[in-house]
Amino acid sequence: MRFTSRTSSDGVTEELFTLTSTFGEIPGVLWTPDGSVGPRPLILMGHGGGQHKKAPGIETRARRFVAECGFAVAAVDAPAHGGRPRTEEHDRLIAEMRDRMQTGGDTAPVLAELHALLAGQSVPEWRAVLDALQELDHVGTGPVGYSGMSLGCGLGVPFVAAEPRVRAAVLGLNGAEVSSEAAARITVPLEFLVQWDDERVPRAASLALFDTFASAEKTLHANPGKHGEIPAFELDSAMRFFTRHLG
Amino acid sequence: MRFTSRTSSDGVTEELFTLTSTFGEIPGVLWTPDGSVGPRPLILMGHGGGQHKKAPGIETRARRFVAECGFAVAAVDAPAHGGRPRTEEHDRLIAEMRDRMQTGGDTAPVLAELHALLAGQSVPEWRAVLDALQELDHVGTGPVGYSGMSLGCGLGVPFVAAEPRVRAAVLGLNGAEVSSEAAARITVPLEFLVQWDDERVPRAASLALFDTFASAEKTLHANPGKHGEIPAFELDSAMRFFTRHLG
Repeated sequence: MRFTSRTSSDGVTEELFTLTSTFGEIPGVLWTPDGSVGPRPLILMGHGGGQHKKAPGIETRARRFVAECGFAVAAVDAPAHGGRPRTEEHDRLIAEMRDRMQTGGDTAPVLAELHALLAGQSVPEWRAVLDALQELDHVGTGPVGYSGMSLGCGLGVPFVAAEPRVRAAVLGLNGAEVSSEAAARITVPLEFLVQWDDERVPRAASLALFDTFASAEKTLHANPGKHGEIPAFELDSAMRFFTRHLG
Repeated sequence: MRFTSRTSSDGVTEELFTLTSTFGEIPGVLWTPDGSVGPRPLILMGHGGGQHKKAPGIETRARRFVAECGFAVAAVDAPAHGGRPRTEEHDRLIAEMRDRMQTGGDTAPVLAELHALLAGQSVPEWRAVLDALQELDHVGTGPVGYSGMSLGCGLGVPFVAAEPRVRAAVLGLNGAEVSSEAAARITVPLEFLVQWDDERVPRAASLALFDTFASAEKTLHANPGKHGEIPAFELDSAMRFFTRHLG
C-alpha cells in the first residue's frame, strides 16, 4: 500500500493510496480523524455504478462517519470504474447495456452479468485492501462495517458473505442484480434501504432480496422517491446503526 | 378533566385522570417530567387490542419519551377496553371474532367492523382529551404527535387524518383493518412499522397501507419477527423521529 497524498480539512485527514494486487493497481482513499492513533472501527464504502471512490455521495458520508463517530472510512475505485482499465468483456457488456437503455430493451440480465463479472474481481480486491488497511497503526484490527448502495450493494453482498471480519452492513438500492446465493449466507446485522419509487430497481426484487438475507437482525427502511433520492435522515440512521454494532 | 392520583418515580410524574365526555367517562393517564412548567411536545399513545392505557408496552415507551426527550405523554383506555363498558354491538363482534379464531375462520372482516365501530367513538374522544390536556399548564399547546401499533394504528389513522394538531405519527402492525380512505388523507411525517413475519397482519396489506399514506415524508421500517416482536432499537428510532419533528 503506497500513499500518494495526505490532506486535512475540518478535522478529517484524507490519504490517497494505491494498492498493487493481482488485478493491477487499486486506487483508494482513507479518511481518519486528524491525529488518530491506535485501532478504531473501519467502514468500507462501495460506490454506485459509473461513480468512483471520491464521488460526492461517498465523500459526504465518509466525512460524517469520521467527524461524528471517530471511525476510519475507506473507498476504492471498483473494477472498470474511476479511470481503472476496462477489459474487452467490460466494454462489451457496458456497450450492450447502453444500447438496451437507448432502445428500451431489458437491461437487467446484462447488468446482472456485469455485476457478477465485477464481483469476481471486487471481492478479492476488497479483502486485499482490508488486509493492508488493518496493518496501519491508525486503523488497526478494530471492528469492520461495509456500506454500499446500488452497484455498491451488488458488489457488497458477495464481499460481506465471504469476509468474516465484516460485522455489520448498510446495503440497498438493488435487488435482482444481486447474488441471492451470497445474500442467503449473510448473517451479520443489516440496514437495507429501499426507494419506494425506484425507477431502476423493481420494488418486488428489493423486498425479495431483503427476505433472502439470513441475518437475525435486519431492518428494511423504505422511503418515497426515486433511485437517487434517499432522504438525509438515513445517513444519521446509518451512523447510529454502525455505532451500535461497531462502536 | 378530573385528576384522581399523582405519583412520581425516576423523575417521571404519573397522573391518572378521568374525562367526562358524551360517550361517558374516559379513564386516562398523563406522564410528564417531574416539576414540569410550561408547554412541551405531547405524544398521544394508542394501545393495542385487548390492552389498556397502562399496558407494559405503553408505559415503558411513555416513560422513556418523558425521561429522555422531556415530552408529555398521554394514554387513554380505548372504547370497550380497560374496564370501560361494552355495548351489545361490541359484545356481538368480540364474540364473533373469538368464535372465528377458534374455528379457524376469517377474522379480518369482523376485526375491520369492530375497528370501524371503535374508531367512530375513539376519534372524538381523542380530540376531547387533547382539548383538555392542552389547557394544562405543564402540557400546553406545544406540538403534538401520535403513536399507536395494531389497534392503536387502526384507531390512530382516522384520528391523525382528522386532527390538524397532530404533526407527526409512528404507526404500524396493521394493514387491512385500517381505513384506507383516512390513510390517504394523512400528510404529516410518518414512521410505519412492519413485522416481516407478522402472524396477524398480511405483509401485502401492510405494504399497501404504507403506499396509501399521502405523506411526503414517510418511512417504512420492517424487521423480522412476529406481531409482538418489534426490536428494542425501534423505540430509540421513534424517539429520534419525534424529537426531529416536534422537538
